[in-house]
Amino acid sequence: MQRRQFLKTAGIGAAGAAAAPFVSTAQAQETYTWDMVTSWPKNFPALGTGANDFAQRVEELSQGRIRIRVHGAGELVPAFEVFDAVAAGTAEIGHSTPYYWRGKVAASQFFTAVPFGMTTSELNAWLYYGGGQELWDELYGEHNLKPFAVGNTGPQMAGWFKKEITSLADMQGIRLRLPGLAGEAMNRIGVTTVNLPGSEIFTSLQTGVLDAADWVGPYNDMAFGLHQVADYYYTSVWNEPTAAVETMINLDVWNALPEDLQAVIREAARASNLAMYTEFTYRNAQALDTLVDEHGVELRELPEDVMQALFEASQAVIQEQVDNDEASRRIYESYAAFQRAQRRFSDISEYAYLKGRENVGA
Amino acid sequence: MQRRQFLKTAGIGAAGAAAAPFVSTAQAQETYTWDMVTSWPKNFPALGTGANDFAQRVEELSQGRIRIRVHGAGELVPAFEVFDAVAAGTAEIGHSTPYYWRGKVAASQFFTAVPFGMTTSELNAWLYYGGGQELWDELYGEHNLKPFAVGNTGPQMAGWFKKEITSLADMQGIRLRLPGLAGEAMNRIGVTTVNLPGSEIFTSLQTGVLDAADWVGPYNDMAFGLHQVADYYYTSVWNEPTAAVETMINLDVWNALPEDLQAVIREAARASNLAMYTEFTYRNAQALDTLVDEHGVELRELPEDVMQALFEASQAVIQEQVDNDEASRRIYESYAAFQRAQRRFSDISEYAYLKGRENVGA
Repeated sequence: MQRRQFLKTAGIGAAGAAAAPFVSTAQAQETYTWDMVTSWPKNFPALGTGANDFAQRVEELSQGRIRIRVHGAGELVPAFEVFDAVAAGTAEIGHSTPYYWRGKVAASQFFTAVPFGMTTSELNAWLYYGGGQELWDELYGEHNLKPFAVGNTGPQMAGWFKKEITSLADMQGIRLRLPGLAGEAMNRIGVTTVNLPGSEIFTSLQTGVLDAADWVGPYNDMAFGLHQVADYYYTSVWNEPTAAVETMINLDVWNALPEDLQAVIREAARASNLAMYTEFTYRNAQALDTLVDEHGVELRELPEDVMQALFEASQAVIQEQVDNDEASRRIYESYAAFQRAQRRFSDISEYAYLKGRENVGA
Repeated sequence: MQRRQFLKTAGIGAAGAAAAPFVSTAQAQETYTWDMVTSWPKNFPALGTGANDFAQRVEELSQGRIRIRVHGAGELVPAFEVFDAVAAGTAEIGHSTPYYWRGKVAASQFFTAVPFGMTTSELNAWLYYGGGQELWDELYGEHNLKPFAVGNTGPQMAGWFKKEITSLADMQGIRLRLPGLAGEAMNRIGVTTVNLPGSEIFTSLQTGVLDAADWVGPYNDMAFGLHQVADYYYTSVWNEPTAAVETMINLDVWNALPEDLQAVIREAARASNLAMYTEFTYRNAQALDTLVDEHGVELRELPEDVMQALFEASQAVIQEQVDNDEASRRIYESYAAFQRAQRRFSDISEYAYLKGRENVGA
């Protein structure tokens, strides 16, 4: 309401410009209308709606000076072409997650999630205080993009399996949907992985193209109905202990923005980062109860030998990437050093509390 | 820079109002200059600077339409009179933490921290999605205040002890600085607690008025030099598994704000909530290393019998409060139900990951 009123009076101001030239200078603030391409189905729970929320926050905080039209995956460009579309200026802004661009920019992986890597609070600390944002700016800057963290799914589950896994032997030959470094680690332990957009997972499990699939967590997995096509939910968190969601802005568009609107984007991104993570925290808990208590889903953990093999394979895959790609080497060096530096405190704070709360029977 | 330019041209606009009355309507957006009273020493690490950061974020996002002059504890009013000063309109806005007002509004406790209660992400989920904000609005609304979460310290350590604690027997007669519900729980197990503003802790430990003291965590505790006056750092997290920092705005001031500036406050608070928590995550890890590796601080955990006794005493203290205060009953009912509902997911996600990461040797 307030915003509309402002625009209305601003419009009148522009009309009165001839009579009052000095005043018109203040009024002639440029407005921007952007297309946002996303990697999510339109309005998909928490991810698609998160894109909507971010767009709305930018519009509200800019008093309507930036308007963003949000497009679902496939509306303007396919899910996995968001990066190229924004880099080329086909759309001004995108909403996705960095590791989807791994085939093009290997080091993008580190800004979403690393197997056995940092938690959500550790990753945010690296981005905001540990030099992570600067490294990300540099990496994406080479592709004419300016990135921000704009949400987070929190810890992701290992995924849905049609048969039970009791040891490493049971993993042999399984066809699994799992993107990124983690997918490569799975390949090393005998699994065959593929990457598919989320929208194709259900059918692929149903038709037997896949034996198993990772997607996100209880809330998003239930939205796709994955519990209807696989009996066992392996909740073990290993591949994505956190997963950052990004916005990326065409760098020419970003550089042309006045400083105050750059601040709006930056702070709207920060607020959205917390908002999405918090929504996942809440809705995952609700969905987990529904999955278990209403749909009878069986929760399982990956056996210890599988977890150990995945850790070792992940380390090997990361090492190879670091050896073969200079950007990956520099970024992972920063990432790994930061994780080590946070570890002692994480262990005596969040981890110690979760153990202590359980120990006393709280 | 951009903001100053805007104000300058806006000033010219006001001067030109007589010649162009329609334009002047758009220009005559009211500006606000507020005093913010805080419970922290001016510029105190993360808490005082967090107040500054929030004020700056509001000024930037409002394009200078709201300016906030931040005052340290004792500059306009003492640390523990922030609530009354803002309620009375002596200052427009405050920056503090809810459980400081427990003597006046018992239920305020639940919005900072509950012993063995919710973690940071669980508390945020309750505030933003579980009805917590609405209950808080109602509670503070009766005192002419509008509250927002505007930061978080993350998990707090049990505190600094001059002597080692090996069992519940060693706790008897200890004089400990610890506010709130947790302080009352400590009293039940034989400790004598007092509440003092942070600035008085160092001297009280040094002169022997205190045997032990809780403050915040490594970063803030080191800033006060507590490691110089107590040898043992008990890191056990129990009393404040999270601790929300609040801003409170005089309700008349809040209600008179245009809707777009209310949105600025709300979103600046959300961004600040993440920013402060993230800063604590980072700086606590750094400070912990310094305390241990450079100052030779001995880290200890409270013995199991002490933790168990504290859990039981905490439950009893909460129950008494709930039995004696209707607002506490309603709010804690919501809080406790939300914590129970989050627990299954917390256990299989963040907690399971921290365990799993340790198990594989990551």
